[in-house]
Amino acid sequence: MMITHPFHDADGDKLREECGVFGVINAADAAAITALGLHALQHRGQEAAGITSFDGKEFYSRRGLGHVADNFSSGGAIGELPGSMAVGHVRYSTTGGAGLRNVQPLYAELASGGFAIAHNGNISNAIHLRQALVQKGAIFQSTSDTEVIIHLIATSRYPTLLDRFVDALRLVEGAYSLICTTPKRMVACRDPLGIRPLVMGKLGDAIVFASETVALDVVGAQFVREVEPGELVEVRPDGRVTSHRPFGDSNPRPCIFEHVYFSRPDSIMGGTSVYQARRQIGMELAKESPVEADLVVPVPDSGVPAAIGYAQQSGIPFELGIIRSHYVGRTFIQPSDGQRTSSVKRKHNANRALVEGKRIVLIDDSIVRGTTSLKIVEMMREAGAAEVHMRIASPPTMHSCFYGVDTPERSKLLAAKMDVDAMRDFIQADSLAFVSIDGLYRAVGTDSRKASCPQYCDACFTGDYPTTLTDHGDLEAATPPAKPVKVA
Amino acid sequence: MMITHPFHDADGDKLREECGVFGVINAADAAAITALGLHALQHRGQEAAGITSFDGKEFYSRRGLGHVADNFSSGGAIGELPGSMAVGHVRYSTTGGAGLRNVQPLYAELASGGFAIAHNGNISNAIHLRQALVQKGAIFQSTSDTEVIIHLIATSRYPTLLDRFVDALRLVEGAYSLICTTPKRMVACRDPLGIRPLVMGKLGDAIVFASETVALDVVGAQFVREVEPGELVEVRPDGRVTSHRPFGDSNPRPCIFEHVYFSRPDSIMGGTSVYQARRQIGMELAKESPVEADLVVPVPDSGVPAAIGYAQQSGIPFELGIIRSHYVGRTFIQPSDGQRTSSVKRKHNANRALVEGKRIVLIDDSIVRGTTSLKIVEMMREAGAAEVHMRIASPPTMHSCFYGVDTPERSKLLAAKMDVDAMRDFIQADSLAFVSIDGLYRAVGTDSRKASCPQYCDACFTGDYPTTLTDHGDLEAATPPAKPVKVA
Amino acid sequence: MMITHPFHDADGDKLREECGVFGVINAADAAAITALGLHALQHRGQEAAGITSFDGKEFYSRRGLGHVADNFSSGGAIGELPGSMAVGHVRYSTTGGAGLRNVQPLYAELASGGFAIAHNGNISNAIHLRQALVQKGAIFQSTSDTEVIIHLIATSRYPTLLDRFVDALRLVEGAYSLICTTPKRMVACRDPLGIRPLVMGKLGDAIVFASETVALDVVGAQFVREVEPGELVEVRPDGRVTSHRPFGDSNPRPCIFEHVYFSRPDSIMGGTSVYQARRQIGMELAKESPVEADLVVPVPDSGVPAAIGYAQQSGIPFELGIIRSHYVGRTFIQPSDGQRTSSVKRKHNANRALVEGKRIVLIDDSIVRGTTSLKIVEMMREAGAAEVHMRIASPPTMHSCFYGVDTPERSKLLAAKMDVDAMRDFIQADSLAFVSIDGLYRAVGTDSRKASCPQYCDACFTGDYPTTLTDHGDLEAATPPAKPVKVA
Amino acid sequence: MMITHPFHDADGDKLREECGVFGVINAADAAAITALGLHALQHRGQEAAGITSFDGKEFYSRRGLGHVADNFSSGGAIGELPGSMAVGHVRYSTTGGAGLRNVQPLYAELASGGFAIAHNGNISNAIHLRQALVQKGAIFQSTSDTEVIIHLIATSRYPTLLDRFVDALRLVEGAYSLICTTPKRMVACRDPLGIRPLVMGKLGDAIVFASETVALDVVGAQFVREVEPGELVEVRPDGRVTSHRPFGDSNPRPCIFEHVYFSRPDSIMGGTSVYQARRQIGMELAKESPVEADLVVPVPDSGVPAAIGYAQQSGIPFELGIIRSHYVGRTFIQPSDGQRTSSVKRKHNANRALVEGKRIVLIDDSIVRGTTSLKIVEMMREAGAAEVHMRIASPPTMHSCFYGVDTPERSKLLAAKMDVDAMRDFIQADSLAFVSIDGLYRAVGTDSRKASCPQYCDACFTGDYPTTLTDHGDLEAATPPAKPVKVA
Repeated sequence: MMITHPFHDADGDKLREECGVFGVINAADAAAITALGLHALQHRGQEAAGITSFDGKEFYSRRGLGHVADNFSSGGAIGELPGSMAVGHVRYSTTGGAGLRNVQPLYAELASGGFAIAHNGNISNAIHLRQALVQKGAIFQSTSDTEVIIHLIATSRYPTLLDRFVDALRLVEGAYSLICTTPKRMVACRDPLGIRPLVMGKLGDAIVFASETVALDVVGAQFVREVEPGELVEVRPDGRVTSHRPFGDSNPRPCIFEHVYFSRPDSIMGGTSVYQARRQIGMELAKESPVEADLVVPVPDSGVPAAIGYAQQSGIPFELGIIRSHYVGRTFIQPSDGQRTSSVKRKHNANRALVEGKRIVLIDDSIVRGTTSLKIVEMMREAGAAEVHMRIASPPTMHSCFYGVDTPERSKLLAAKMDVDAMRDFIQADSLAFVSIDGLYRAVGTDSRKASCPQYCDACFTGDYPTTLTDHGDLEAATPPAKPVKVA
Repeated sequence: MMITHPFHDADGDKLREECGVFGVINAADAAAITALGLHALQHRGQEAAGITSFDGKEFYSRRGLGHVADNFSSGGAIGELPGSMAVGHVRYSTTGGAGLRNVQPLYAELASGGFAIAHNGNISNAIHLRQALVQKGAIFQSTSDTEVIIHLIATSRYPTLLDRFVDALRLVEGAYSLICTTPKRMVACRDPLGIRPLVMGKLGDAIVFASETVALDVVGAQFVREVEPGELVEVRPDGRVTSHRPFGDSNPRPCIFEHVYFSRPDSIMGGTSVYQARRQIGMELAKESPVEADLVVPVPDSGVPAAIGYAQQSGIPFELGIIRSHYVGRTFIQPSDGQRTSSVKRKHNANRALVEGKRIVLIDDSIVRGTTSLKIVEMMREAGAAEVHMRIASPPTMHSCFYGVDTPERSKLLAAKMDVDAMRDFIQADSLAFVSIDGLYRAVGTDSRKASCPQYCDACFTGDYPTTLTDHGDLEAATPPAKPVKVA
Repeated sequence: MMITHPFHDADGDKLREECGVFGVINAADAAAITALGLHALQHRGQEAAGITSFDGKEFYSRRGLGHVADNFSSGGAIGELPGSMAVGHVRYSTTGGAGLRNVQPLYAELASGGFAIAHNGNISNAIHLRQALVQKGAIFQSTSDTEVIIHLIATSRYPTLLDRFVDALRLVEGAYSLICTTPKRMVACRDPLGIRPLVMGKLGDAIVFASETVALDVVGAQFVREVEPGELVEVRPDGRVTSHRPFGDSNPRPCIFEHVYFSRPDSIMGGTSVYQARRQIGMELAKESPVEADLVVPVPDSGVPAAIGYAQQSGIPFELGIIRSHYVGRTFIQPSDGQRTSSVKRKHNANRALVEGKRIVLIDDSIVRGTTSLKIVEMMREAGAAEVHMRIASPPTMHSCFYGVDTPERSKLLAAKMDVDAMRDFIQADSLAFVSIDGLYRAVGTDSRKASCPQYCDACFTGDYPTTLTDHGDLEAATPPAKPVKVA
Repeated sequence: MMITHPFHDADGDKLREECGVFGVINAADAAAITALGLHALQHRGQEAAGITSFDGKEFYSRRGLGHVADNFSSGGAIGELPGSMAVGHVRYSTTGGAGLRNVQPLYAELASGGFAIAHNGNISNAIHLRQALVQKGAIFQSTSDTEVIIHLIATSRYPTLLDRFVDALRLVEGAYSLICTTPKRMVACRDPLGIRPLVMGKLGDAIVFASETVALDVVGAQFVREVEPGELVEVRPDGRVTSHRPFGDSNPRPCIFEHVYFSRPDSIMGGTSVYQARRQIGMELAKESPVEADLVVPVPDSGVPAAIGYAQQSGIPFELGIIRSHYVGRTFIQPSDGQRTSSVKRKHNANRALVEGKRIVLIDDSIVRGTTSLKIVEMMREAGAAEVHMRIASPPTMHSCFYGVDTPERSKLLAAKMDVDAMRDFIQADSLAFVSIDGLYRAVGTDSRKASCPQYCDACFTGDYPTTLTDHGDLEAATPPAKPVKVA
């Protein structure tokens, strides 16, 4: 959710969801529940975490770099966050010390009292709004686009906080699933297109909001429903739940990539099991792009469900031809004869005894820059594979995301630079195929894509962005804004 | 390798391998290679790591609590370990700060010069040997059984270091795969029964030793052969490799549990692929204990290969009915309404949409105390499973290990307390079956077990210990020795 | 400089200066010079330090809890602060982790560009100004009164930054010695009364500003002159120095306590040597309150110069009857028989062999709560002193300071509760005398105090506050404002 | 007490005492008392501290780098050290991480049980003894000479621990003041010459041992007597105190430099007040080397008592012409125009207003390498001093110490390289004089030095070493022993 990052060159070769949000109201130990919930959403943002609680009198906040477990598993940490209302956030951040002031929830003391906000998504006119606010005398403490929302609320002329909040949101464009707290209520809301997910659950008398249903499962809450696109749900300490629809109607376009990669397979997204959608993508792929082979091998772990589907559809045995180490993280110093090894090898190792002499169908979820695919294919060949056929459980990723997903700049997306044949040559596979956009739509349980009014946001595959992109006039070639002061 | 721990009550519900060792000689950047190798062996010991290098003049040592990546990924750390010979160790240790002096490699300055040693295994007469050494004036700096070997070498009357080394090993009983360095050589050796594994590889001009072949793969080395049971391999800086057989012949009995659980699936152990052996166990299990069901579901990740085998043999589809979170570690504070959640849930979550209404065959590698199995079965039922049939890819674990594996005391082993029917009731499964001991032997590629002269150490299943157990006269009821000073 | 602290109950028994400031422009290695300068001002604020530099393009900032040496002695820290302009700050802060966002220099991005500010002093209408700003939509990131100045600048309607700055300062009342940087200049200014000190020096082509001359000495700069009360000195990167006098004329009233205790004895303050003023106070005291005795003993270290003066004037030998340990800091766990020892004893120990049987004149700089004086007198008696006569090198401290000095609330000031005779009984001395207010004025080199128009701010002795105290309407009984969110 | 250090090139320009010891038996909260006592001895060793306690059953130990307050002020730290008997140690160590295993008390489990030892002094045949022990199979865990004593005890053939202890001490030569604990007693002993100090005190029912009386003062204990040279005092848990004299009679030769510099001025050493001895040295110096001048200025803090004596004897006023900062420690990054400043300036600053135009007598305790003296003289001249006369409160330091004091190697001692006239020229003073050896002896309260049988060890001034120096055959040119493994 950094204004500065949309073109950040990630060192991994995956798109990265940038945030997960969680909130609970009317629960004893709200912070402990929030810590568990954020832990279940850790895959949505692994570099920083924060929780803000309210105990009826004061707000308490704790934010830290690193995993939820590093910051919020101790009794001491939770003990500093008293109260029956809490909101939390996990995020993927760019780097180091600079980040702490951008770690959410953000907090401000407004004239109406304290206000905490956790945001999943990205505001695509944040730079323009920020410049106008600074001209009027606003002083920003972070480089986060989310802070724009707070300043818009602070300077709105409407009398009530809820009106000011809606007034602020009317000015922003882009994707936002928000959970906010004031001394008198928790408010959860989702942008009119519902680009990023947000669900509501029930835990005894408490109401819970979370990015994915898996967080409800882990804290023991029951799924109630999704927060609807364009809906604003207000929950008060006395338990009253009020739904507001301040933005009128619009056709929702939730992010389809949540089904392909971001969400956990045990989540239910838009009424569909993520695991089953992925397995179904594998089946579509087997129908669309069959191949004669001995083994179906997933690139672990994200390729597993589609590989199971491909194997079931094709009848070719599913086998673990690549073993993934769970002890990955830091970069090691390469020995000077390091050409023999690589970071891919530390993470993935060929199951040589299995692969040797076999024709392999490799299943992965997506190709971003292609560097990892190249190494995985090479690893299979070194292990003696007779043929390597790559099948990808998404269409070619050709466009950047401006709605809260970390994408490399367009010029680094392999599919933006070459066609499928060239890509096959680049990764040195014997064959390469992607699932079709319609196959993907079918797999997630809808009809084929309606070109006039698509059911999902699929801009990363199609370039069809559902909102204007004010800050990115020269589409996908924007220069990052000047970097403000670095504060330790 | 702590004298004090064989009955340590682990908080996890798995047996734990206690150590991994790695050594390399005649390689530029020996320490960097060793760090990579240990990283690939991280699953064998996750609580501490150490590396000792030798640069032709001095020994350098660095040891730390935590993962290899936490201690040895920085250029600074590796830069402090110069030289072309290095030996490293990962270990599972009992607790906290106290442990640092027990972290290996252990180092001593003997009259012959510096001596570093890394040990995988456990010496079953260490307490007796230690008492005798202290009586003669030896001062121990750790509570590790490995230090006994050093003192035996230091006080041996033989003239050469190699003779002193053999003299020392003749006095110890139990399991040991050792990698040692002196200023003039690296020595790798394995006890006469070859209980713990040890392999040799080649990386250019360098010779590499490691607990498992996966470490050879990751550093880019080629597998040469196993160090044989009872063999002592000496490698000199000029490249000469000498094999010694000081202990005469004996029938090897390598640990069969390495195939069931400890080793990585991409390792080759005793000539057999660990992955394929595990898949084969699943097939044997499907033959021995078939059941009518809708899905084969592994308890991830260790149950996956056997589940694939079971599914292939039975024709029942393999599906991920349980999703494992990769962000596990610390214990979180439980909210006061915490009965609804649990640590098992943070690690494993049911894939409810898949499981609901289905008859499930659950595949796990072993049952230790049974507490996890109970929770997993319960989780399947809560997710709506119609029937839950548990199949275990090892025979019942009924006895403690005294050879370097962390086992709960016997009274806590579920299979030591009840028969299979009672176990089934305890874990509340609809049916429960274990692979037979002969099925297990067949799966790892041998004939059925020869009772008179078993091909493996399978004492944890059979109670048939291949060595005397001097320190454990009252078998499996030994009291731990008095705890020495706690040093920060 | 915390809005929340004026009545903070310090655990020490001294008044505490709350800040020191330092700035340099047109110097290679501006940050390294600033670190040295702040180190020389460490006695003015020991709990946090910060430096902000500007390299012609960007601002860089680093702030930390602890001493300057803890945060700014490493090459790494200084390397992160490039540029030829830097401003720094040391502060005494109330507590722990909460403080980091209050550590100065504060930084903001205004419409005109970056703006950094370091402040010594205290704004006595900060709470009122802040409330008005929040009503208009300002979002504060700290609880510091200094941030009020930034928001006033940000929202001023004047066109140029310098005009906005003056516009802002016209609204604030109280004490401020400020050093600010913008991309185009450094601005140093002092409130119209010149309550807190600020000097200007020259280091080659560079201009240096600092709270005290000792910082000029340590960085090798030459003293040029004081920044005048009500003066605003602007220095540009091309070396031009411009003096502005936006506030018209007023009679300066610098803090007289700087001479008594706050400043280092090797500083020159208002043209007078601090050491010589203190020695002269001792001489005045010897004239005003002579006593027959054997030894003049300072309470180290702050009582030493006055004791030397008292000894020289009286002819009684100066001796170290109390030895101060330099290893003080943390509170130790008291043994259960701890009544025999005390924290005073850890810091000060009687030189028993010297003191025994002697009549002692004890010289200290001030009495705040009286608890330390009581213990010191007791310590002298336990060491065998025949008589203990206390002489204090300042008048009785009877009123709180609202201008940047940490004072206990009035009800805890011993001199606010009792007369000199009662104070003597309380501390159990044989006699007690304070220097007179006129004696103090004479010692610092002026005539006696002019009651109609005092030459100094001496409100802590006289209650004669030189400004209105808007936030403290009910003088010296103000309740602290509600505490905002605690942010880790 | 490192075998490796006698010629360590300290970065400061002072000799450094290397250790302080403290022990207490029969006191509730023995560890808390020991922490306080060590804190009072912090000047004797500032780089590491350790405490070992015994609670009737087990020994507990905690050791850390840094000050006592950094390691032992928290309740947690003291809580880990239960029991009514404790022994502690502060030390000056060479460097960094390597040191922790050398931090005392050292602990070993002997056949007779646990044994902890704290040592002040240095064993001058430790290398020879160590080599012999290693030949017999001893394994050393530190590079400390103290560990030699433990191994000698462990391998002694005598039946009782006390006999083994005496047997061991008979083999060592050099200086040792030891405090040891076994499960049944505390033993304090001092080498036959009594080179390093050791005193005994009483705190209720508890017996306390400490390097200096100031530690007794701070814990509230009463001084009983010194442990006599060659005496071994045994204290048992039932309160019995037994004195042993196993070494027969010898003429004591305590270190005279304790009076000059090492000890705290508020300690009583050999019946004499350290402060009064230092003041008396100043008086002797004024008689022996008078000079016409305006001010007597101490080099703070160690020159203060002698300066007071010089001023009293000469009638020249005592003034603080140099101000010392208490915030010293780390080295700062020098700005590139750093020739204008220096580390001496950060620590000492001229009191320019006082010094300008005056003739100064500078008093310092000793000259080691002369580099600091040179800078201090230069600083006085830059501040405008008309003349600078240096007077030193000890004879020229010409020889290394082998008894527990850190001395630069002889070739770096200024007085070993040149005569007094040349030294005066080197430091650029107008005159230079040292107190005579007889003047020093008189000042500490004895007659003049008896050349045939000196009353003190004054080898650093005279080269007259009271013991053989086995490890240093080629006197004062010994090469340091090979450095053993560096262990993190």
